[in-house]
Amino acid sequence: MQKSITGFSKLSKRKKLQWLVENFFRDPEGVMKELMSYWHIDEEKQSLLDRFSENTISNFYLPYGVAPNFKINGKLYCIPMVIEESSVVAAAANAAKYWQNRGGFHAEVLSTEKVGQIHFIWGGDIQLLRTKFEDLKKKMLSKAESLTANMISRGGGITGIELVDLSAKSSDTYQLRINFKTADSMGANFINSVLELFSKVLVEFVSCDPYFGPERHNLDVLMAILSNYTPECIVRAWVECPVEQLGTVESFDALKLAKRFEKAIHIAKIDPYRATTHNKGIFNGIDAVVLATANDFRAIEANGHAYAAKDGQYKSLSECRVENGIFKFWLEIPLAIGTVGGLTSLHPMAKHSLELLGHPTAEELMMIIACMGLAQNFAAVRSLVTTGIQKGHMKMHLYNVLASLNASECEIEQTVSHFKHTIVSYSAVRDFIGDLRESPLK
Amino acid sequence: MQKSITGFSKLSKRKKLQWLVENFFRDPEGVMKELMSYWHIDEEKQSLLDRFSENTISNFYLPYGVAPNFKINGKLYCIPMVIEESSVVAAAANAAKYWQNRGGFHAEVLSTEKVGQIHFIWGGDIQLLRTKFEDLKKKMLSKAESLTANMISRGGGITGIELVDLSAKSSDTYQLRINFKTADSMGANFINSVLELFSKVLVEFVSCDPYFGPERHNLDVLMAILSNYTPECIVRAWVECPVEQLGTVESFDALKLAKRFEKAIHIAKIDPYRATTHNKGIFNGIDAVVLATANDFRAIEANGHAYAAKDGQYKSLSECRVENGIFKFWLEIPLAIGTVGGLTSLHPMAKHSLELLGHPTAEELMMIIACMGLAQNFAAVRSLVTTGIQKGHMKMHLYNVLASLNASECEIEQTVSHFKHTIVSYSAVRDFIGDLRESPLK
Repeated sequence: MQKSITGFSKLSKRKKLQWLVENFFRDPEGVMKELMSYWHIDEEKQSLLDRFSENTISNFYLPYGVAPNFKINGKLYCIPMVIEESSVVAAAANAAKYWQNRGGFHAEVLSTEKVGQIHFIWGGDIQLLRTKFEDLKKKMLSKAESLTANMISRGGGITGIELVDLSAKSSDTYQLRINFKTADSMGANFINSVLELFSKVLVEFVSCDPYFGPERHNLDVLMAILSNYTPECIVRAWVECPVEQLGTVESFDALKLAKRFEKAIHIAKIDPYRATTHNKGIFNGIDAVVLATANDFRAIEANGHAYAAKDGQYKSLSECRVENGIFKFWLEIPLAIGTVGGLTSLHPMAKHSLELLGHPTAEELMMIIACMGLAQNFAAVRSLVTTGIQKGHMKMHLYNVLASLNASECEIEQTVSHFKHTIVSYSAVRDFIGDLRESPLK
Repeated sequence: MQKSITGFSKLSKRKKLQWLVENFFRDPEGVMKELMSYWHIDEEKQSLLDRFSENTISNFYLPYGVAPNFKINGKLYCIPMVIEESSVVAAAANAAKYWQNRGGFHAEVLSTEKVGQIHFIWGGDIQLLRTKFEDLKKKMLSKAESLTANMISRGGGITGIELVDLSAKSSDTYQLRINFKTADSMGANFINSVLELFSKVLVEFVSCDPYFGPERHNLDVLMAILSNYTPECIVRAWVECPVEQLGTVESFDALKLAKRFEKAIHIAKIDPYRATTHNKGIFNGIDAVVLATANDFRAIEANGHAYAAKDGQYKSLSECRVENGIFKFWLEIPLAIGTVGGLTSLHPMAKHSLELLGHPTAEELMMIIACMGLAQNFAAVRSLVTTGIQKGHMKMHLYNVLASLNASECEIEQTVSHFKHTIVSYSAVRDFIGDLRESPLK
């Protein structure tokens, strides 16, 4: 067994696979065949997918589903979702249907500014730079014209440049914080290109002007990169209806349901342990659409959770109020996504997702995604405070356990019936199936 | 066009697809064929994948790659990664190779406790419950024996039950916070089943005993569910070497590199805008392995980011120190994952991932994932503070733009050569290719 290798990235895909299966698997041939069975039949398409990343040897399949009947700002959507967790799509579809007859979902984009940062170290007098800051900005903007022209014509561009003094916390450390609008693209490449250019302009501007004193040759740009935190790129989604329209769930009448719901949201505001799970549920919905449109879910997650911590304690992203007979439930979240550029226009499935959504602008997609997060959260909290989370989950869990035990149709039937009123656990199901198999006529 | 539908979930997969393509796509037949081309050729396998979620109509393909040469606690791994973002796998593989000759990665699991919560509303005197709390705990544990027996035999079980008073912030509101160990499983179903049972025991315990006064019949369990926040389920990963072994990158010698690196980490400690992006990079690596092993990345993200905010300001999860000639870089992160149960043993690709990793225990997988996060962070910060992030990204971006323009081999060659010293933007590449196509002999 040779577990270390040099020049792996330069091997062909088949050679990579071969090295892998020969050195890490008990059944090299079987695994090789199996991994290749996940390749797309169209070689060109597969090769496109392969080039999204490096050292690719196969595809990982995630279920691609849809949640129909989403009424958002009066328009009907069928929303594509990519998620491996059971119950998420079902919950979304249920919430969509529920609100379809109660005015639907509403959403509004509050702001669309993205952020880039240039950090630099300088032992000189920062007051000198402040004095000449307007000149520096002008120079930066003019030097960047060829980079920004196209973005400006699409309605985006650079909207602000600010000098942030970090020197009290880290010696000689300063930041240029630059605001961008990036129209329908997520904009990472645009922002990073501008930042690297601005870095050069900054160094040149200071080093060439004796006004900045003897330290002028020592301004050192440490790093320049976009920030994934965009508290000024925010979308708001909400639902509302008279309390009595909420209907009855199990033994809970509409008002009781509303009050329990409100209480659950309040607890997620005051307890970080609960808030984490609460927001996780929101992202179950959000990430499913983010993935389906080939946006970057790590960026969306980091942004949203950092925002949830902005007031000094990590808390719920959604809020609820029951007042004057009206139930109102809403969500405000930063979402820096795109509908052009990047993988959104390259991944073949993402293209279909965007067509399914009616070729939305980035702002429309922000609203769709936020409504999906809210729908997910609504469904989860409603079942939590009424039937409990396990009723639905356990049914799915039971089917998963049965699948892992390769249960036959007949075994499935008997097991499902047995566990209708018994708590499902892996061992209980395994034992039950074991008994069945020993005495099948029981 | 009929954009709303009743009974969609009950349609067969083909009928679902048909409704979709007929009502939302310009080329129904073409899209139907295309979506079906992503089905797995083995019907049984496809039907297994379909049942992971609901309303499934196809699979979303994510690139499945590997990063070899990861030396972790002296053992060599080739780590599977599922990620659609370019440069992530390459960066991981580079960092692995780099540290392989510098002592490798080190990791240690610090704790493995998971958390469940039962929230209840009670107008009675909580002091009465405190007095009898030991009795309640005994009753709960004894009632749960049949549920916990199997988990205990695998080394897990219930490790603590605590009463948390939230009434100062939310009237009449209390919480039972229960700690669990769940051995090699993520444990969500186990925890939730125990919590729902405990809820019943709690209500019964209070309502049946006149000691609890006239309010004893009104104890109301609002919700019972696990918490995704696990600050007591922590893994630590680190690398270290003498500063001079760091080597030279571009014009930066080892000491300069170490100092720049340390400064970059410090900035991510003090500035939330930077911290968000910094941690996003860590999760690029983490989520890729989490996905490849069919663990739940939304849970991992929520947990990690909430942890990053635990001190009241959102900050970097990794830390760096350059001291006495030693460069040390480390990460502490909560990771609640499993290597048995759930989809880990059901998703066919996840099974291969686990075999590739040598069938790790949950603790081993925690260490592998944490090292991947650290590797990713190391590679990203090192290139940020030296060559800049765009050099590598732009090359990938250029190839993506070329792919979206369906560039020929010959066009690719000319374009790559042209953009070696020119800033890449979509419009610049499009214009260049346009020019080429108008005068191909240029």
